[in-house]
Amino acid sequence: MKKIVTLGEILLRLSVDHNVRLFQADQLKMHYGGAEANVAVSLSNFGHDVYFVSKVPENPLGTAVERQLKSHDVHTDYLVKGGGRLGSYYLETGVGQRNSQVTYDRKYSSFSMLKTDEIDFDEVFAGAELFHVSGITPALSQNLKELTLLALKKAKEKGVLTSFDFNYRAKLWSQQEAADTFKTLLPYVDICSCGELDAVYILGIDLADHSLSKEDKLKYYYSKIVELYPNIRNICSTFRTIISASTNTLQGNYFTDGELYQSEIFQIDHIVDRVGGGDAFAAGILHGIVENMPSNELITFATAASVLKHTVYGDSNEFSVSEISAFANNGPGKIIR
Amino acid sequence: MKKIVTLGEILLRLSVDHNVRLFQADQLKMHYGGAEANVAVSLSNFGHDVYFVSKVPENPLGTAVERQLKSHDVHTDYLVKGGGRLGSYYLETGVGQRNSQVTYDRKYSSFSMLKTDEIDFDEVFAGAELFHVSGITPALSQNLKELTLLALKKAKEKGVLTSFDFNYRAKLWSQQEAADTFKTLLPYVDICSCGELDAVYILGIDLADHSLSKEDKLKYYYSKIVELYPNIRNICSTFRTIISASTNTLQGNYFTDGELYQSEIFQIDHIVDRVGGGDAFAAGILHGIVENMPSNELITFATAASVLKHTVYGDSNEFSVSEISAFANNGPGKIIR
Amino acid sequence: MKKIVTLGEILLRLSVDHNVRLFQADQLKMHYGGAEANVAVSLSNFGHDVYFVSKVPENPLGTAVERQLKSHDVHTDYLVKGGGRLGSYYLETGVGQRNSQVTYDRKYSSFSMLKTDEIDFDEVFAGAELFHVSGITPALSQNLKELTLLALKKAKEKGVLTSFDFNYRAKLWSQQEAADTFKTLLPYVDICSCGELDAVYILGIDLADHSLSKEDKLKYYYSKIVELYPNIRNICSTFRTIISASTNTLQGNYFTDGELYQSEIFQIDHIVDRVGGGDAFAAGILHGIVENMPSNELITFATAASVLKHTVYGDSNEFSVSEISAFANNGPGKIIR
Amino acid sequence: MKKIVTLGEILLRLSVDHNVRLFQADQLKMHYGGAEANVAVSLSNFGHDVYFVSKVPENPLGTAVERQLKSHDVHTDYLVKGGGRLGSYYLETGVGQRNSQVTYDRKYSSFSMLKTDEIDFDEVFAGAELFHVSGITPALSQNLKELTLLALKKAKEKGVLTSFDFNYRAKLWSQQEAADTFKTLLPYVDICSCGELDAVYILGIDLADHSLSKEDKLKYYYSKIVELYPNIRNICSTFRTIISASTNTLQGNYFTDGELYQSEIFQIDHIVDRVGGGDAFAAGILHGIVENMPSNELITFATAASVLKHTVYGDSNEFSVSEISAFANNGPGKIIR
Amino acid sequence: MKKIVTLGEILLRLSVDHNVRLFQADQLKMHYGGAEANVAVSLSNFGHDVYFVSKVPENPLGTAVERQLKSHDVHTDYLVKGGGRLGSYYLETGVGQRNSQVTYDRKYSSFSMLKTDEIDFDEVFAGAELFHVSGITPALSQNLKELTLLALKKAKEKGVLTSFDFNYRAKLWSQQEAADTFKTLLPYVDICSCGELDAVYILGIDLADHSLSKEDKLKYYYSKIVELYPNIRNICSTFRTIISASTNTLQGNYFTDGELYQSEIFQIDHIVDRVGGGDAFAAGILHGIVENMPSNELITFATAASVLKHTVYGDSNEFSVSEISAFANNGPGKIIR
Amino acid sequence: MKKIVTLGEILLRLSVDHNVRLFQADQLKMHYGGAEANVAVSLSNFGHDVYFVSKVPENPLGTAVERQLKSHDVHTDYLVKGGGRLGSYYLETGVGQRNSQVTYDRKYSSFSMLKTDEIDFDEVFAGAELFHVSGITPALSQNLKELTLLALKKAKEKGVLTSFDFNYRAKLWSQQEAADTFKTLLPYVDICSCGELDAVYILGIDLADHSLSKEDKLKYYYSKIVELYPNIRNICSTFRTIISASTNTLQGNYFTDGELYQSEIFQIDHIVDRVGGGDAFAAGILHGIVENMPSNELITFATAASVLKHTVYGDSNEFSVSEISAFANNGPGKIIR
Repeated sequence: MKKIVTLGEILLRLSVDHNVRLFQADQLKMHYGGAEANVAVSLSNFGHDVYFVSKVPENPLGTAVERQLKSHDVHTDYLVKGGGRLGSYYLETGVGQRNSQVTYDRKYSSFSMLKTDEIDFDEVFAGAELFHVSGITPALSQNLKELTLLALKKAKEKGVLTSFDFNYRAKLWSQQEAADTFKTLLPYVDICSCGELDAVYILGIDLADHSLSKEDKLKYYYSKIVELYPNIRNICSTFRTIISASTNTLQGNYFTDGELYQSEIFQIDHIVDRVGGGDAFAAGILHGIVENMPSNELITFATAASVLKHTVYGDSNEFSVSEISAFANNGPGKIIR
Repeated sequence: MKKIVTLGEILLRLSVDHNVRLFQADQLKMHYGGAEANVAVSLSNFGHDVYFVSKVPENPLGTAVERQLKSHDVHTDYLVKGGGRLGSYYLETGVGQRNSQVTYDRKYSSFSMLKTDEIDFDEVFAGAELFHVSGITPALSQNLKELTLLALKKAKEKGVLTSFDFNYRAKLWSQQEAADTFKTLLPYVDICSCGELDAVYILGIDLADHSLSKEDKLKYYYSKIVELYPNIRNICSTFRTIISASTNTLQGNYFTDGELYQSEIFQIDHIVDRVGGGDAFAAGILHGIVENMPSNELITFATAASVLKHTVYGDSNEFSVSEISAFANNGPGKIIR
Repeated sequence: MKKIVTLGEILLRLSVDHNVRLFQADQLKMHYGGAEANVAVSLSNFGHDVYFVSKVPENPLGTAVERQLKSHDVHTDYLVKGGGRLGSYYLETGVGQRNSQVTYDRKYSSFSMLKTDEIDFDEVFAGAELFHVSGITPALSQNLKELTLLALKKAKEKGVLTSFDFNYRAKLWSQQEAADTFKTLLPYVDICSCGELDAVYILGIDLADHSLSKEDKLKYYYSKIVELYPNIRNICSTFRTIISASTNTLQGNYFTDGELYQSEIFQIDHIVDRVGGGDAFAAGILHGIVENMPSNELITFATAASVLKHTVYGDSNEFSVSEISAFANNGPGKIIR
Repeated sequence: MKKIVTLGEILLRLSVDHNVRLFQADQLKMHYGGAEANVAVSLSNFGHDVYFVSKVPENPLGTAVERQLKSHDVHTDYLVKGGGRLGSYYLETGVGQRNSQVTYDRKYSSFSMLKTDEIDFDEVFAGAELFHVSGITPALSQNLKELTLLALKKAKEKGVLTSFDFNYRAKLWSQQEAADTFKTLLPYVDICSCGELDAVYILGIDLADHSLSKEDKLKYYYSKIVELYPNIRNICSTFRTIISASTNTLQGNYFTDGELYQSEIFQIDHIVDRVGGGDAFAAGILHGIVENMPSNELITFATAASVLKHTVYGDSNEFSVSEISAFANNGPGKIIR
Repeated sequence: MKKIVTLGEILLRLSVDHNVRLFQADQLKMHYGGAEANVAVSLSNFGHDVYFVSKVPENPLGTAVERQLKSHDVHTDYLVKGGGRLGSYYLETGVGQRNSQVTYDRKYSSFSMLKTDEIDFDEVFAGAELFHVSGITPALSQNLKELTLLALKKAKEKGVLTSFDFNYRAKLWSQQEAADTFKTLLPYVDICSCGELDAVYILGIDLADHSLSKEDKLKYYYSKIVELYPNIRNICSTFRTIISASTNTLQGNYFTDGELYQSEIFQIDHIVDRVGGGDAFAAGILHGIVENMPSNELITFATAASVLKHTVYGDSNEFSVSEISAFANNGPGKIIR
Repeated sequence: MKKIVTLGEILLRLSVDHNVRLFQADQLKMHYGGAEANVAVSLSNFGHDVYFVSKVPENPLGTAVERQLKSHDVHTDYLVKGGGRLGSYYLETGVGQRNSQVTYDRKYSSFSMLKTDEIDFDEVFAGAELFHVSGITPALSQNLKELTLLALKKAKEKGVLTSFDFNYRAKLWSQQEAADTFKTLLPYVDICSCGELDAVYILGIDLADHSLSKEDKLKYYYSKIVELYPNIRNICSTFRTIISASTNTLQGNYFTDGELYQSEIFQIDHIVDRVGGGDAFAAGILHGIVENMPSNELITFATAASVLKHTVYGDSNEFSVSEISAFANNGPGKIIR
């Protein structure tokens, strides 16, 4: 089993019961997660040998992060300890007609101040098969812009497959700043997770023809991306319809060798926790690629993984390959007894 | 900013977790609210200068009421202290196919025994712009029938705009008793919240023609009311469809100058707490009137306010004007991060 | 009022909050229930004089079972005390797209080791009108196969009406073993709860003609069963459609004198707890039979009982006859206040 | 086994977590109890056949009371249903240096309005061995003063042993009013629970000589009481030292045939719930009398019962005779495993 | 009633249940408090007209702070809104032999970056009688060192009484840095809260003679302080003995006009929450000074206030003057009912 | 760092809130622990490389055990998966004058049916320094008697230091059966944890002379044990005084080279959870031996470890070496901030 590496920030998420607003709350639930940490946990739950590269403070919250990762069998060999604080955020959990709202408190975190020379990428990528990072990481600081680029370059040097999820966050940086950064990174990316809005607003691709179907528009954008960055072999995204904060639909898209593969449209009702849904999808895609799943099966697996994630609290996708496959094949069913 | 006054009872609501019945419960959640208190809190959250007139006992529950109001910036200058008890009620919260059930324990409350001379309405209405009271208040005792009438008369004398919400409660009095009382009050009312059933069963208006549409029936009833009480300038109500205790639809109706304005039909799913939904609507209407909103915008704002109320626990509508407007314009959306 | 007797195992159910998986959980909710115990509680809530025959250990969990039954007015005169342990199971409660999952820990229980001579059926059935047992009981041990057969025979000897619910559980025994056992029991059964799958896979009835409607297929199966066991006078089942773990539809079927009676199709959303839904239905059927309800009314009552059961936590159906009738007639409605 | 009867009010106690004050609280724990109901439950836990006479409303809280009593095997044959409300009170639970505080909300309760002719005491006392009532009952209303006197007279007529616990509550009535009432009742009392303060302030007995020891003072008061009411055969009370709301000491006193018997002084630390401690003591005394325990053993048993009561939440003493005896003999000990 | 002003940071305290360690926790309780905010709340609970000067972010946590202050009637007119974050800290609550541990996360807070020109002290001190600030405020940033000095100077110019609590926190700055700062502030201070260790390690006063009693040592240090800063008229502190995290003793010291007044030694057991105990004491001292209490009474009142604070969760002292006086006079007592 | 191996059963502990009895409870807290698993976790927290040998079922509870161990960095390489069930027990947590009570439900567990050939001890002990097992393991089944003996023999063959904790449990076997078994095991033991009662009732050593002090009695027993089993180099135990279930004292005893070393007597108040206290002590002893601590220091460290364990919920001792040393040196102290 070859190793998989992800790099990113892990945050303390402080969430409110779904029936009160943050300013009324008198208690918070604690979960530790972050885009790339979530992918790491998912892939470990799928049976892979996963390493998470990050930095956390030497205090009880740093200890909690370590325990959380270890309990999921994610290796912490490259988890640097030090710096001032663990980034955190407050989540007012949406329900029905009320949206979720995030109040970030992640500035000045240990990870955001991580320096290039604190990680030995030669060691990190030794024997690795796959490397995953998201656009949140370079958004956090100038240091991390450099570190992300360095990591992707090093990975390619070492022959490691690279995956990049755009994950654009408007509260962290402008579209222009993201665009400038992503353009330096994309030449080193093999697998890319991005959507239509990313294609238009970040990559500056011309709007697709009005008259095209939704699918054909996406195909057009993805073809354009591959024209710009021929190194990109796989692109994925989801179409999400939001009926309410508790009821969504989800359809997965996977583009490879010029073909677009789509999952069925899954209904998602009684959403328990949507945070981490995209990371569960990304992990599903990566699992499918590493395991050489047929593209149709791959996109169904990844989307089903994301759907199930919505039924558990916390960022982590706590389902095994066999549970996800069973759901993808049989849908929601009887009580098993 | 001119002051707004509401008058009514504030109760301790003791509610059960939604997954047990009251007779099985071993704990209760506490919320303080009441029709007019809820309107007061909503209007204060909208930025108005609001005074709540009531009476609560001098005991820890009375203190809790004061704190609750103050934390919402509602003025308690006219909150009389004394008497025997705070009215309360037990709420078995409905879910899915099971209705909510109220067990009242509000008799003999301090407020229900409030006497006319305990309130100095000259002082209360000095500098006031708007006065709101509901039909629950006169239902509680003979004293309060007199007090309500006195308050409405005084308000009109002082040139204060008056608002009256029928809020007929079958557990408190008969339709006949309500009718006899409301007819003495309505000549002093400018803004009125009442529905079709109120028109027919309380005001004794003849049934509308079968063949009319729902909208035209309502227009007919409202025109009749204005014929009876030409002083009434605005009438409002909602059409609520109950699919289950957890799923409703809601449409707002606003009648003024002979025209009926309706909001879109809002879906409400995953209802957290329906109590106070009508008060949130009433507060939205009053805000719109005070702020001279166009009628179309007003009815959408008021209905959207009511819809959002269903997503938080407790009687109070904990949303700002800008949050309600954003929802009215954009609907339920993405996680903001 | 004549007495009703049920015989079976009562288990400690240990269930997890719906938003975590069992392996993540740090607390469990406790409920005591079992197929026949649930029927006993329901019938007692409907005003009948009910006795539950079982065996529980002499330890605090045995005491808890007694208190639970007594609080529901179920008589414990025939509840034997002794043996090693109370059977239990862990319930990972499903929500949305995630199924409920049961992890049984019921082997070696006091009840499963109950011996034939520990119960004096002459005494048990003295003055009894109705006896109910389900297919779970004989599935638990060889002892209990014998005991179930003995109980049914004794009941018939004493002129007691007998009811048998197939309740096939794949985790407890094979279809073959169930078939062999049920065939010895059915000659002593008056009222039978079983569905299409039971008819085909347990009783070995030939598949119905493809071209038949769902209703006609069921009629065909039920007619065949009555051919095989002419002693069976009433057969019932439900059609359940599973949209998600939180949203189902339910329709009740009741077959008697060669006629099939069906309830309307009830929507069930925001399911709180599905466990015990079938037992609530069975109790509704038995109540209807004992009370000589017209068949149409009976099947609506039984299905409505089952629907309401989904709105409360725990196996027990905590609704009275009048509450169920009100729901069957009026559907989900307003807040009663 | 002969029957035991108690008569009194059962209240809904609404208590706050020990670390917040009532005016800050947002949830309440629910327990149902009352002086005589607590004695009933204790005696039933000790294996006696107990009937509780009272009145509760026909609403879900009345149902909850019934279930609570039945789960403890207390017979509810004489529990009248009807009237307006269940009396309740709010308990701010003390801890450390902070006292417990009670906010009563028990006026106008169904029980307080119970009329003499609603209870058929001939039936109630048929076959009874013991009747217990406390001074709280006549304090609640004029009706109940009459009812209490009637009950005691009827009991004596029927040859039933009578027990009366002073239970003076300053928030319910004045010492003078209590004195006037108690003096009409005491001629019909066999067993009496009252302390020094009761002797002086209610019965008007002259203060004991300063120079006497605590024990001798009590002997003096008890002798005087027996002089006044020679029918009283047993008197009991406790000496409680309050180090903090969480740490007390307790010593039991039992006076019979002119002799005073005292238990050892028990340390009580980490008090979970002190309410019901006196009722547990009273029930222990009554059990000892009915079972003809030697006086030394009786007073130790009763005091140990009261001590153990402090370790569980709720008014009820949830310990068996064997558990109390084991504690009385061995004290707090090892983990039993 | 003249106004009282306090200036300082208000933090979000995130505390763990007392029976787990922070790194194990999955939920946190939320309380808002800070040294000077706690004094403000206490004084408002004592009936004073209190203003709190600070800065909080414009986000839901800033809103929560406002509501918390308003619910306690503390005026927020000088609460600036803006900046990046609300300072917070994690509290692992000690119990028995385990200490409480604080993990600060308060750097870069809105308050710590408050600039001198954001507060108009002329307006703030208009009509004020008393100003209180603690040594935590200047410890937070260079800005705040200047702001604290400016505030004290302005207060003295305006004839406002000034109070300063050393509150030395080793995790915020060194003794040397504190000393350099405090020496610039003390010339403007009337009332000072500091202990022996402060005298020696911050103010550099020579160690008292070994042979002196504890009291005489304190008198020696306080006399020396008054020699250095003759403007200081009152000095106070407590002697705390720590038997365990749950059991302490507390004695108050108050030095004025060359005399030392001491309270009795209070036992504190079953400590619920020790945070804010010092602020409750300081508020008690200030109340006593403003109300011209005799020194003996004053020190007992202040110490009793602090003792009671230990019995409630959260930083705020939720007791009235009459409750504290009752406790100071009567100690822990009976259930009041 | 050499590896340490422990062998034993890990159970699901289901504990009740301390303020209710088990038969009243409606929820349970879940912790996973067992004598040897607890020692493993403690030693891993102290920085050792620890392997836990056991067997758990392949179901969600087995997964939970794995996660629990991994989160503490305990290696699960020798954790066999399979068999029928995870042993469990119910803990009614004592408080004040009420004892803790254990209701075992551990029969037929996967571990108790573990067979000798399921573990390859050659592999297990390769490179190991220390092996620990307790008397609970051989008590569980005949298989495990053989397995324990085999393990000890193999360990000695491989030159691994062996540790054996008597841990006699009266609910699992008789003293005679334990004695017969222990006598076969003790010739292979280097380090032994047993107390006076074990010496007398299990090993049959004559009672020590009455006139001896407690310490000299223990010395006498320990000398006798060494006479019988000269291979035993270290013996340890604690003296525990039980003031109540919440208040104990603890003193550690360590015997080596004919000398008895004792810690100070630690006060333990406000006990959160006593289960695992003995295992924390054993782990402290083993740490001291492996680290060659001086005997005085060792016994203080081990006892302090046990004392701190009482302050956290769950079996595991969640303290680091430095935290325990700090407590051993400084005792309970101030809030660190």
